Amino acid sequence: MLKWPEKVTVKEVGPRDGLQNEKVSIATEDKIEWINQLSEAGYDYIEISSFVHPKWIPQLKDAREVAKGITREKGITYAALVPNMKGLETALATNVDEISVFMSASESHNKNNINKSIEETYPVLEEVVKEAKVNNKRVRGYVSTVFGCPYEGDISLNQVLSVSNRLFDMGINELSLGDTIGVANPHQVDETLQFLNGKLDLSKIAMHFHNTQGMALANVLISLQHDIRIFDGSLGGLGGCPYAKGASGNLATDDLVHMLESMGIKTGIDQANLLEAASYIQDKLGKSLPSHQMHVNK
Amino acid sequence: MLKWPEKVTVKEVGPRDGLQNEKVSIATEDKIEWINQLSEAGYDYIEISSFVHPKWIPQLKDAREVAKGITREKGITYAALVPNMKGLETALATNVDEISVFMSASESHNKNNINKSIEETYPVLEEVVKEAKVNNKRVRGYVSTVFGCPYEGDISLNQVLSVSNRLFDMGINELSLGDTIGVANPHQVDETLQFLNGKLDLSKIAMHFHNTQGMALANVLISLQHDIRIFDGSLGGLGGCPYAKGASGNLATDDLVHMLESMGIKTGIDQANLLEAASYIQDKLGKSLPSHQMHVNK
Repeated sequence: MLKWPEKVTVKEVGPRDGLQNEKVSIATEDKIEWINQLSEAGYDYIEISSFVHPKWIPQLKDAREVAKGITREKGITYAALVPNMKGLETALATNVDEISVFMSASESHNKNNINKSIEETYPVLEEVVKEAKVNNKRVRGYVSTVFGCPYEGDISLNQVLSVSNRLFDMGINELSLGDTIGVANPHQVDETLQFLNGKLDLSKIAMHFHNTQGMALANVLISLQHDIRIFDGSLGGLGGCPYAKGASGNLATDDLVHMLESMGIKTGIDQANLLEAASYIQDKLGKSLPSHQMHVNK
Repeated sequence: MLKWPEKVTVKEVGPRDGLQNEKVSIATEDKIEWINQLSEAGYDYIEISSFVHPKWIPQLKDAREVAKGITREKGITYAALVPNMKGLETALATNVDEISVFMSASESHNKNNINKSIEETYPVLEEVVKEAKVNNKRVRGYVSTVFGCPYEGDISLNQVLSVSNRLFDMGINELSLGDTIGVANPHQVDETLQFLNGKLDLSKIAMHFHNTQGMALANVLISLQHDIRIFDGSLGGLGGCPYAKGASGNLATDDLVHMLESMGIKTGIDQANLLEAASYIQDKLGKSLPSHQMHVNK
């Protein structure tokens, strides 16, 4: 028999990573109400928005109002993504608990996404991380396209390691490895984590899978065998996949929590609360969310 | 690192298990054309229909015409399900290559499905298997509700073993263990196969998962670790789930083959051919099939 952990941490990225890929604009007060519902569900961590220029992601232009409007529950880390010092300053002014920074393991995806080479990105993030730490904020890093890039295809494991090391050297507390386009297969996840084991502290690694090809939960299983204990999810599968029309994007938190809990692995998250919160944002978006739980329980 | 096999066998049950849960009636000539397309995709095994009374499953009332109309390719086993001696006789008259028989591990599901107790079912199947063997046909058994029953909930492992042993004692060549309502979780699959290991010959066991909760591919992964090498799929996820409206049913063969091939595990099945055949039956049904591959590639 395989060995399974007693508990894992599931982090909710729907209000940021999910919503940023949704076209229907959600009102600020509805986002606040939704995040307050998520706070009731038992999460430790909710990424509430992104302090990027509104031109980049109009959906998240109200990051400041959201951060100020939500009810902060004790024991929950409310985090926000920032791309640069300007974003950090606004985020700090709202007193979010944690900052997240991001870059890509792929040169061309990084360039396409933030218009900088990887080398040009490092000093920008370094300054952000340093300033966040001065302000006593924990920092989470995201590396995207770890398992494949829409422009370059395969990304070498050494490249993933190199980017990860640079981010840890800056002082980030945790690193989320992203399968941005949902191409990771379980064998590849197995090989990747085997490679990283001993080179990075895997207790500080989170996995961020997309379910584009239906393999996200299988990839979670393999990660559990490599002692990964932190996973990202987007409630209801919110977010879609910008690279494949009609395909699912982010792994649905409700499907992730359901699998883990059904296996006897504790997440601390209440599934009935999750479904209520998923139904709420589904109604606001006016479209059916792709998670299995939302279909089974409707 | 985990160990993965070089190849596995994927068996197509869509024309029987998929279609029997679809309401839109498919014309006999379209079924024949579809099965001929499947024959081009590289399968070893296609279950083409079910010789049951038309009152039970009107969709499959043309089993005889389908069996006689398809082009039989060398190296492919064309199988059909039969519930009793009457079905067997008709099936034998069409000279299908293999017979399948079925029953449930759950007393109430068996009763509900075929109006017989488990004890009453054994002699019926025994006669069918015996007669099939006299006619030099291989026989496959299906046991449904192995991982849970819609009426009874949990099914004991001893009950699963007992039913399996009875079927093997009758002389079946292979047994497909079905997660009929899609409730199996990877921990449960792990425990079940650990329990059965040494009690049954696992090289003769196929796993038949449903993707109702999104866990089917994760369950395949665990089964691979227990040396299971045969999996059932229904192309495009054809079939839906009769117990949960809008939820997916059978594991989609195209998602299964995609995961296995992406992991470097050979199936012998051509994915482009699969998608063509899936599109064909999707058009005939006039509805979007739920597989991830059908969404990613559209």
